[in-house]
Amino acid sequence: MTDTTPRPTVTAFDWVPDFARGLVRDMRVRWALEEIGAPYNTELLSARSPRPDEYLARQPFDQVPAFTDGDLQIFETGAILLYLGEKDERLLPAEVQARWTAIAWVFSALNSVEPVIGRIVAYDIFNAGKDWVPAARESAEALCKQKLKRVNDALGSKEWLAGDFSVADIAMITVLNNLRHTDLVAEFPSLAAYKARGEARPAYKRAMEAQLADFKAEAPQAA
Amino acid sequence: MTDTTPRPTVTAFDWVPDFARGLVRDMRVRWALEEIGAPYNTELLSARSPRPDEYLARQPFDQVPAFTDGDLQIFETGAILLYLGEKDERLLPAEVQARWTAIAWVFSALNSVEPVIGRIVAYDIFNAGKDWVPAARESAEALCKQKLKRVNDALGSKEWLAGDFSVADIAMITVLNNLRHTDLVAEFPSLAAYKARGEARPAYKRAMEAQLADFKAEAPQAA
Repeated sequence: MTDTTPRPTVTAFDWVPDFARGLVRDMRVRWALEEIGAPYNTELLSARSPRPDEYLARQPFDQVPAFTDGDLQIFETGAILLYLGEKDERLLPAEVQARWTAIAWVFSALNSVEPVIGRIVAYDIFNAGKDWVPAARESAEALCKQKLKRVNDALGSKEWLAGDFSVADIAMITVLNNLRHTDLVAEFPSLAAYKARGEARPAYKRAMEAQLADFKAEAPQAA
Repeated sequence: MTDTTPRPTVTAFDWVPDFARGLVRDMRVRWALEEIGAPYNTELLSARSPRPDEYLARQPFDQVPAFTDGDLQIFETGAILLYLGEKDERLLPAEVQARWTAIAWVFSALNSVEPVIGRIVAYDIFNAGKDWVPAARESAEALCKQKLKRVNDALGSKEWLAGDFSVADIAMITVLNNLRHTDLVAEFPSLAAYKARGEARPAYKRAMEAQLADFKAEAPQAA
């Protein structure tokens, strides 16, 4: 029998440069869907030529992913993760305190940790070689280490951020992965072990393979 | 009769420098509580002397606000806003698409818009006068304008981001306020009008007065 249940759809890019492969944010949604064994479709967009104007109604920042489940449309990975979490306790606990702790850590990943990691990436990747970068990076690196230490200390000997594995860990580990071109995470043993634990999960590996498989080898010509 | 219902508690600072007054993040929670007429207590902490170690269990990044409602503890303003929203439709609509659109915009404010505004603040305030700042700022300002334009265009002639007024507007308007030392928001007419509309709400004004009233005039001595 063929399963005719409509599948959720995730937008993704059909090509990105090497430095971004595995980091594009649809990875977060793919990982969550793989954790609960939910089949999904991908809708591939060009990262080079402009997306059609109507895409802005689905994703106002013209980025990926946008998510569709039946008639429902959601943008922002944090929101998509919470939506999937509400449907499945393997992603978000139902118990009140555990639930809000997990939701708080999703926001921590995206608002307390990712912004300063974004500065490191902006300096190392997007502005590499410019003469103002070393001084700017020094200032951001101190702040970045402070945030990483806070997460490291909060983890301590815990396996996951909020009790059982949850969307908080999907958010935090994919955020930390933006530092993969540096040794910063390795300076914090609990954090490094935590990240390795997350990336060893079969669902993470399947999600990563799926994102990489959707990229063309060569940059498509701009339309 | 005295109302003996336990009130939620919000942590805040007892003093901050002028540039931060009105911007400290407990403002977001105070505003939401004022919108629904919910009385609350503040627990004032020193921004100068270290917080007690046990505070990290409530707020792992040693920041404000931390939020307590009975036995429940929540950190991260995004999570606290969603918690309050789930309890009151005046803050978060119950209808499924409207709810997820509002939640998506909360994440947009905190993850798509605030990070680049944070860079402008880092350059203008925390690193003012350093010789690498002008070049770094130029790169961030272009990105900041791009994000502001996206929000401006998504707003168009709409009054609020997600239908009725919601926590999405509390998040976005308080994020935009971090640019109050610049003319950047004024370059985008829909955005500027939207921000003014939010700040004209009586609940916003009450929240602002309450935050300012909790600051001592003089910096306390470090403990």
